[in-house]
Amino acid sequence: MSALVPRLKGICGDDGVITDRARRRTYESDGLTYHAEVPGVVVLPTTAEQVAEVLGLCSAEGVPFVPRGAGTGLSAGALPRTDGVLVTTSRMRRVVEVDPDNECAVVQPGVANLDITRAAAPYGYYYAPDPSSQQVCSVGGNIAENSGGAHCLKYGFTVNHVLGLQIATPQGELVRLGGKAPEAPGYDLIGAFIGSEGTLGIATEATVRLVRTPQKVTTLLAAFTGMDAGGEAVSSVVAEGVLPAAVEMMDALSIAAAEAAVACDYPEGAGAVLIVELDGPAADVDADAAMVRRLCERAGAFEIREASGAAERARIWKGRKSAFAAVGRISPAYIVQDGVVPRTALGEVLGDIARLSAESGIRVANVFHAGDGNLHPLVLFDDAEPGAGERAAEVSGAILDLCIRHGGSITGEHGVGVDKACSMPRMFTPEDLETMDLFRRAFDPAGVANPEKLLPTPRLCGEVPGVRKDVHPLVAQGRAEQF
Amino acid sequence: MSALVPRLKGICGDDGVITDRARRRTYESDGLTYHAEVPGVVVLPTTAEQVAEVLGLCSAEGVPFVPRGAGTGLSAGALPRTDGVLVTTSRMRRVVEVDPDNECAVVQPGVANLDITRAAAPYGYYYAPDPSSQQVCSVGGNIAENSGGAHCLKYGFTVNHVLGLQIATPQGELVRLGGKAPEAPGYDLIGAFIGSEGTLGIATEATVRLVRTPQKVTTLLAAFTGMDAGGEAVSSVVAEGVLPAAVEMMDALSIAAAEAAVACDYPEGAGAVLIVELDGPAADVDADAAMVRRLCERAGAFEIREASGAAERARIWKGRKSAFAAVGRISPAYIVQDGVVPRTALGEVLGDIARLSAESGIRVANVFHAGDGNLHPLVLFDDAEPGAGERAAEVSGAILDLCIRHGGSITGEHGVGVDKACSMPRMFTPEDLETMDLFRRAFDPAGVANPEKLLPTPRLCGEVPGVRKDVHPLVAQGRAEQF
Repeated sequence: MSALVPRLKGICGDDGVITDRARRRTYESDGLTYHAEVPGVVVLPTTAEQVAEVLGLCSAEGVPFVPRGAGTGLSAGALPRTDGVLVTTSRMRRVVEVDPDNECAVVQPGVANLDITRAAAPYGYYYAPDPSSQQVCSVGGNIAENSGGAHCLKYGFTVNHVLGLQIATPQGELVRLGGKAPEAPGYDLIGAFIGSEGTLGIATEATVRLVRTPQKVTTLLAAFTGMDAGGEAVSSVVAEGVLPAAVEMMDALSIAAAEAAVACDYPEGAGAVLIVELDGPAADVDADAAMVRRLCERAGAFEIREASGAAERARIWKGRKSAFAAVGRISPAYIVQDGVVPRTALGEVLGDIARLSAESGIRVANVFHAGDGNLHPLVLFDDAEPGAGERAAEVSGAILDLCIRHGGSITGEHGVGVDKACSMPRMFTPEDLETMDLFRRAFDPAGVANPEKLLPTPRLCGEVPGVRKDVHPLVAQGRAEQF
Repeated sequence: MSALVPRLKGICGDDGVITDRARRRTYESDGLTYHAEVPGVVVLPTTAEQVAEVLGLCSAEGVPFVPRGAGTGLSAGALPRTDGVLVTTSRMRRVVEVDPDNECAVVQPGVANLDITRAAAPYGYYYAPDPSSQQVCSVGGNIAENSGGAHCLKYGFTVNHVLGLQIATPQGELVRLGGKAPEAPGYDLIGAFIGSEGTLGIATEATVRLVRTPQKVTTLLAAFTGMDAGGEAVSSVVAEGVLPAAVEMMDALSIAAAEAAVACDYPEGAGAVLIVELDGPAADVDADAAMVRRLCERAGAFEIREASGAAERARIWKGRKSAFAAVGRISPAYIVQDGVVPRTALGEVLGDIARLSAESGIRVANVFHAGDGNLHPLVLFDDAEPGAGERAAEVSGAILDLCIRHGGSITGEHGVGVDKACSMPRMFTPEDLETMDLFRRAFDPAGVANPEKLLPTPRLCGEVPGVRKDVHPLVAQGRAEQF
């Protein structure tokens, strides 16, 4: 590694390379803090060319690199390597262009998600994908993880909002994918790059779609005595053809946690709270809001609140948005799971989760994107109690099994990273995984781009059918000789 | 080839293999008939497993294969090879499942585009992508070409409507990509597969998204004296935030052709006709229709017609839908070009096309998807006149150059195929093309999947920077030894 430092400084400048151990330690994990490793060296490039040169150097020398945006990821996708280079885009934060005529913006990868909206707002536009971390998370990280958010139900994920990319490939080339004109010929590698978790290179510039600021936004909160009634309301809203911007649900335990943490003042005695947000032309929003009200009442809602002003809406969202952190008030520790089921299987899966919880004696709080079947069960445990973490992890794993069994997926929006790489064979056949690995190697023949993330390896997961047997030769060599 | 026939019959049955020359000749081209070549052998598999076995055999033997759906493509993407196997999916025409609860359908690749809508209509749903050939074109072909249609402005292309695929890879494996649950982890290879023009394998089953049948559809026709005024109307519609289902424009020459062919009875003296279709909730459609009317009037429309009933709407669409064929009435021959420009560059590019036409003395009729900047200039010529075809091709090529220079693309919806493979280096850098070729080879190491389509080769295009130097070794060998 030390041999590499002068060359990295030659590319990024002295102030663009961090070697001091204390400073490197601040990068040891992303948002999933129980995976941590101090990076061998950290670089902070300021241009696309610098990024490409750094990656090309890593490929030539067989040194692994790990890309990092703002470090808010929840699957340890940006977990550094002591034998590798951490490439962070935090100094590439320029909004290059806002182009309202073509309804798009061009941004550098380190730009914070919400800063795109801030730049577009004066023109009556915003950037739709809205992960909860949108104040700080970077658009480059969003691209790597194909990030979603509460409003993805109506607006789709990051992949639906990126028109063009400039990427630095692991071999150090700068390549353009897509652009302002729709549907470029050739392979649609934008879609494959988005969500590739840093294994195909680093996005150095993105052209993103801007969406019109809606004329009106109305948020409804409906309280039910139990989850079944809430689920019934969701089903009937979908059956009536209403497409809300967001449909979120919380169960009794997560409501209690939110009350304890932020005093969100949700209706007393609620066994389930449903939040439905509608946006669009005022006439539609009003008609849809009336319809959603009726359907919630018919499903047994005992209280319904409606908010149109920004402050009132924020009050409704307060409990939901604080739910994850709030669970810390009622449990010393917890695991946030992230699974998906087809929406129609939601009721059954929630029933199964309740049974799992009752049988194991481990509490599970449910907060989820009900509209698109993306569950976030919070599995609570006491980390002071020996073996409790393992038992919680077992329940959390069993919930994933449930999702897979119902035709769903092991992650909705948090990604695979290191955390779920070994779960991939539960969802994909050996042929599926081999095809993905062939694709990965086409971009990264040296095997240096975020190794051991996304796809399972024997070192990480043991012998699993479909898991490639060999470690990338350059990485193996790099490990043996250099570190 | 003859050595392969018994083995192909072993896979597809005697009636699933066509060797008779006269019958093979019926497959000699797709919709772009000036490229033609009789296939070495034609196979008609009935199951996914048969498709996979055929492709695996081709890979093992180094024999090229060409996939074919209904043969309506316009870029010679299904041009057969005398030294290869033509794999047609025409006997795989079963709608496997309509699942209105999860708003999707599962279909075999040979199902006609419109048959999905026919199967979904009883549930109040339809399949949105609508190429003009939708009565006959197959969903497998739509997937290979990422087909669009007049309504892609609002609803997107095929890639926006496919949730899951089963594919047979060139090496003969059956692999699943995506599924009913949104956003599967791993690489989004669905997006890259869609539009890959048969170079990555053959889709053997597709799970497609169904869209609610709109409550109301209104079609407006506005007549202007010239194209500038029509273009101004389009710009102001977009600026007002109206999102029509379709925005189509025709110039004087294409209107004249349509009149001559189908007597569509468009307003007399029109230098430009604009068709705007609106769909959605009745209240929205009525409000938007009133707005579009006002904006057209303000831009100088001298006549506006409005149709809500199906028969009236069909009358408005009649001229537009017949436009390509109708041009045959006013010219012995023509080339249909398919280019894209950012919408804001439309006016300038149309002006440049008019200048090109005037300078060269070659007539160009313009019919286009104005809403998304997808131009279809028809370059007219007399094929009896020596050199006229070449001169028309020059003008047609110059129009593509214009599109590229304005940040657009060489194809909007017809694909690259053989026809535009040599134009790819005009749009992509050598690094871009190399990246695509690496990707292709990851799926198709034997180089047998629809060779010489999509990406340029020296044999096809001569020496061009970024064009790979070597022919795939197995293909070269196959050519030398077997044929």
